[in-house]
Amino acid sequence: MTGTVRPIGAIAADSGRLTALIERFAALSEPGRGPGVTRLAYSPLERAAHAVFAEEMTALGIRVWTDAAGNTIAERPGTDPTLPAIGIGSHLDSVPNAGTFDGILGVAAAMETARQLTEREIVHRHPVRFVVFAAEEGARFAQACTGSLLAAGLIGSADLDHQVDPDGITLTEAMSAVGLDPGGVESARWSASNWAAFVELHIEQGPTLESLGRRLGVVDTVSGSTRVRLDLRGRAAHTGASPMRLRADALAAAAEIVLLVESVAHQTAELGTRATVGKLTVAPNSMTTIAGEVSLCVDVRELDGDRQQRVAAEIVERAGGVCARRGIAMRAETLAEALPVALSPSVREVLATACRSLDIEPVVLPSGASHDAQQVSHVTPTGMIFIPSRDGISHDPAEWSSAEDIALGATALATAVLHLDTALD
Amino acid sequence: MTGTVRPIGAIAADSGRLTALIERFAALSEPGRGPGVTRLAYSPLERAAHAVFAEEMTALGIRVWTDAAGNTIAERPGTDPTLPAIGIGSHLDSVPNAGTFDGILGVAAAMETARQLTEREIVHRHPVRFVVFAAEEGARFAQACTGSLLAAGLIGSADLDHQVDPDGITLTEAMSAVGLDPGGVESARWSASNWAAFVELHIEQGPTLESLGRRLGVVDTVSGSTRVRLDLRGRAAHTGASPMRLRADALAAAAEIVLLVESVAHQTAELGTRATVGKLTVAPNSMTTIAGEVSLCVDVRELDGDRQQRVAAEIVERAGGVCARRGIAMRAETLAEALPVALSPSVREVLATACRSLDIEPVVLPSGASHDAQQVSHVTPTGMIFIPSRDGISHDPAEWSSAEDIALGATALATAVLHLDTALD
Repeated sequence: MTGTVRPIGAIAADSGRLTALIERFAALSEPGRGPGVTRLAYSPLERAAHAVFAEEMTALGIRVWTDAAGNTIAERPGTDPTLPAIGIGSHLDSVPNAGTFDGILGVAAAMETARQLTEREIVHRHPVRFVVFAAEEGARFAQACTGSLLAAGLIGSADLDHQVDPDGITLTEAMSAVGLDPGGVESARWSASNWAAFVELHIEQGPTLESLGRRLGVVDTVSGSTRVRLDLRGRAAHTGASPMRLRADALAAAAEIVLLVESVAHQTAELGTRATVGKLTVAPNSMTTIAGEVSLCVDVRELDGDRQQRVAAEIVERAGGVCARRGIAMRAETLAEALPVALSPSVREVLATACRSLDIEPVVLPSGASHDAQQVSHVTPTGMIFIPSRDGISHDPAEWSSAEDIALGATALATAVLHLDTALD
Repeated sequence: MTGTVRPIGAIAADSGRLTALIERFAALSEPGRGPGVTRLAYSPLERAAHAVFAEEMTALGIRVWTDAAGNTIAERPGTDPTLPAIGIGSHLDSVPNAGTFDGILGVAAAMETARQLTEREIVHRHPVRFVVFAAEEGARFAQACTGSLLAAGLIGSADLDHQVDPDGITLTEAMSAVGLDPGGVESARWSASNWAAFVELHIEQGPTLESLGRRLGVVDTVSGSTRVRLDLRGRAAHTGASPMRLRADALAAAAEIVLLVESVAHQTAELGTRATVGKLTVAPNSMTTIAGEVSLCVDVRELDGDRQQRVAAEIVERAGGVCARRGIAMRAETLAEALPVALSPSVREVLATACRSLDIEPVVLPSGASHDAQQVSHVTPTGMIFIPSRDGISHDPAEWSSAEDIALGATALATAVLHLDTALD
């Protein structure tokens, strides 16, 4: 063993460096796409963000590689070459018109952890891996967490042809276009024997921590999500010349469905069922033509997998009833489904201990959003740390977390790595 | 006087020639825009269609000119140079994904009338003008009937900067881009002393003639239209992490508004109030983001102008209530308003006589759609002839009228010109 083992808790993340990193990533955004950051899954901009990460890791003398799925991984060796790795990280892609923290925080904090470990010459037994997953957001493609799903072996190369973006580009084509190897993604699969644990730091994206006045959370369960596209076909006709009684207005039917989706969700409690139509397109979308076709996407989130599937099925059935009554043809397609995941209680306990070493008692809470951590939990014991989101807002330019909370979260993450290094075999 | 005055009713429009003309115009359509014909107002394709008309008129030896507003007019002189003109015609632009008859029928029938008059060397006292109005459809710009409104002097050059298409191009810019003279449109204004009457043949675009089993209609009243854009601003947020109770979902509010627009219309009879949301756009329109902004357009059509304005105001007020209850900001803007117009009873009587000379008793019926005839009726006595639309469908590729009805309508139009030539001073 070389170097000095610092006492746990000695790490203090540099707030200025974290802010500068977050701003550097925010600058990588599609021009002319409106407010906020747009850096979609498997776009050249996402790859440029991965390149920033790789460059910074290399500058610290840490070996970096990118797998066939586009996940970028850097490894700082531990002192015991027989031990599996402790992983930390998140993702660098965004939804359209996003904020600057979702995903980015977890990567920036991992980069700051790497810098702290290197500059302070901290020695750890396990290898520590700094991970940037590709294509976490399910905005361009309905499938969220593509990079981590491939790493977890939950999907494979055969699944990549079924996901299509709004321009008709498949996941396979998008990956090839940015120099990745969609046919070779099986090589990106993680082996359980290589990993001791994985931890993701993330903004909460909801209001719980802020409303409780608390600064750190540790996650017990990550919500599942079922995504269904409904394609409605009515009859386009002239808005002036068509009597109301003869219409088959696809937008009026869609409006009923949007409201029934909302009402189904309202029937349950706080982070019970959340059900949303966030995407809806009308054709021909002309002021003087009754809508002939409407396509809409329903997103159902649940902490209870049975209820998630039941509610999604109920929505499709009742939407079918709306359409039948209105003389509208409806086609339903399930685009993606991930069931809720309970994260590792033992990792959560180590994370809580790390938080307490910073004099913070963490809140144990569920995650309403999906995360890469949810996917790799199928391979290795996994935990998540949350910091507060102002007003609970995310997926919007107004997404914001304070520099103090960001630094605290990064410190908690780095501290947790050292606690895990001690606690794990 | 030269040539022979044929007995009224001797004209028989050539069905094959009409069909070929309609197909020739249908071929002028934006590629890659989906099914049907897309030839938008003040686009190069609309100008190309006007050029076909001009070329055909010139080939018949008929003088043609285009005014500053883009209306193309051809004139066959009468025997009495002191008499004002009888005008016939319609328009050649379309909504997106349109059928092939709306507007086109009236122009093709005017072209066939010109050919019949020329080839049969028919002599008339009044000059006959064959008119193609520019930019009739209110799809690209909210303002419908731009060419005829300018001809009627109901709008002027100062109004052209206020209308903007979805790409942010103003009417002024669009007109300049296709070589027209938006600053000089006052020169396109018709003088009442120059016109004896105007007649437009059109497909009904509604179901009345078909449902009655009748082949010709003459129009008494043309519906008015009020168009209002509602811009809703809620709060974009993560679809998973946002509890239902904390949302300000602009799409859910819009869905309520779509249904209230429909319900307001349903309160009245057949061609009573028709109210439609045909255009609705969502931002950021992402599956995993609650809609932060929705913009929608309400189109209210009425035969009663007071009710038209009252219903439009009621919709805006109740939409405001929906938004207030949901914590959504709403802005309402009236994009265009045309009040219902009663067409000339004396012209209608001549049109009915012309129909009867073909052994057809016409149905007197209102027009649900707007028409150029409605605008020029402010300058000269005006009438309209309708032929049936299959299933009442229009503004859709399924729009269809039989070749027999098309030929009958064109014959009725040409016959009506000769009747008017006799009946009018």
